[in-house]
Amino acid sequence: MSIPLKHFKKGSRKPELPEDGVLRFYSMRFCPYSERAALVLAAKKIPHHKVYIDLSEKPDWYTDYSPLGKVPAIQLTAVTGQPALVESLVIAEYLDEQYPERKLFPTDPLQKALDKILIERLSPAVSAVYPVFFTTNPPEDALPKFEKALDIFEEEISKRGTPYFGGQQIGMVDYMLWPWFERFPALKHVLAEKYELDKQRFANLLKWRDLVAQDEAVRQTALDSGVHAKFMLTRQEGKPNYDVAFEPLSNL
Amino acid sequence: MSIPLKHFKKGSRKPELPEDGVLRFYSMRFCPYSERAALVLAAKKIPHHKVYIDLSEKPDWYTDYSPLGKVPAIQLTAVTGQPALVESLVIAEYLDEQYPERKLFPTDPLQKALDKILIERLSPAVSAVYPVFFTTNPPEDALPKFEKALDIFEEEISKRGTPYFGGQQIGMVDYMLWPWFERFPALKHVLAEKYELDKQRFANLLKWRDLVAQDEAVRQTALDSGVHAKFMLTRQEGKPNYDVAFEPLSNL
Repeated sequence: MSIPLKHFKKGSRKPELPEDGVLRFYSMRFCPYSERAALVLAAKKIPHHKVYIDLSEKPDWYTDYSPLGKVPAIQLTAVTGQPALVESLVIAEYLDEQYPERKLFPTDPLQKALDKILIERLSPAVSAVYPVFFTTNPPEDALPKFEKALDIFEEEISKRGTPYFGGQQIGMVDYMLWPWFERFPALKHVLAEKYELDKQRFANLLKWRDLVAQDEAVRQTALDSGVHAKFMLTRQEGKPNYDVAFEPLSNL
Repeated sequence: MSIPLKHFKKGSRKPELPEDGVLRFYSMRFCPYSERAALVLAAKKIPHHKVYIDLSEKPDWYTDYSPLGKVPAIQLTAVTGQPALVESLVIAEYLDEQYPERKLFPTDPLQKALDKILIERLSPAVSAVYPVFFTTNPPEDALPKFEKALDIFEEEISKRGTPYFGGQQIGMVDYMLWPWFERFPALKHVLAEKYELDKQRFANLLKWRDLVAQDEAVRQTALDSGVHAKFMLTRQEGKPNYDVAFEPLSNL
């Protein structure tokens, strides 16, 4: 019984999933929030069945798992009532507490709180850059705003003085921030003029990015910036094609 | 050295706060997110200095404490660098872990995750009712939408079968939800026709509300629905007056 590698759409038959007590993970391949959950599952090597959901035409049966129709969701089939959890940070923290062998959040409550606040502080950068990714006519000041919002991350990684935001080892804060840093390089494909973050201004942040890119869980989960760009263009055209994730790279 | 009981405005002098290692709490008296933090501080009897911030005309010095100018914020003056924490849920969880004597979140990771998701699920009710509180021309379907969004809370408290969402004792989930349930009865003041939640449809939820209203931390923190309504009217007029919280009740 294998789950087809595609995004399930409205009208598609509900996949038959084995009743084996293994966690079920509902995701969309290009959703950065889903990727957060995927990274924690990979980092902790937690067995799971993966079901991809087409977010523009959701299957009717999906609300059985995620009442608000959101991804990511994880369904705990080994627990009575098979409850589903949503919200990437709630899922991440649950998995970290439930599978504590390789703890990803700091055990110090203050450091954990500061890391969570840092995670939230990426929002202005994401809000600034999204119109560039997903619309054909982004505001003129989008990129300067994006860069300004990233300054605090360059500042913070420099202040912390460790290779990762999480310290000497990769931690939850790195995994929660990563999905967007994986997407930012797609700018060099979607913009007419090739774009990269300034190597001086973001020296330590780019070092961090290169280091995280080599992490095993990240390598298992990440998509090439060209694939991200391909998806972005389908969304710009108003016809998001989630399944481009599964096409061979040579089609780029 | 006592801190004046008022909301500090742009141009106001920075209050001199004692360097006594006591936690500083930055709040706005009508902000439900600030109230969440206030409830946890009260429930755990954590000593603190309170500074109220005028959110429509923030004092320039406030970003020294809360870089994004947000309330609530708590500043940890006993810690090197005196870091400040923001985001009500981050603050609540930090306080719960740092002052574990009376634990408010469940220790079971799954129940904690489910409680956090329930907290998020209040958003549609809040979004529906806010225009009624704060604008002079709310959409016609605001109240039906509000009630529909509350149905899941009636369902959930009935399903849990305990007096509190948190169980036999009041818990974090109750405190995180409460500030909005404290404000909902202001509808009977701001609407031309007196409005109350239906006593049949929301039987268990209203029982919960009455019970939580009697909690010691809630009684120390809550404002009367008439005071909330008074503030709402000042906001409807485009001139939010935060200090009505400190006027004698007889002025209502």
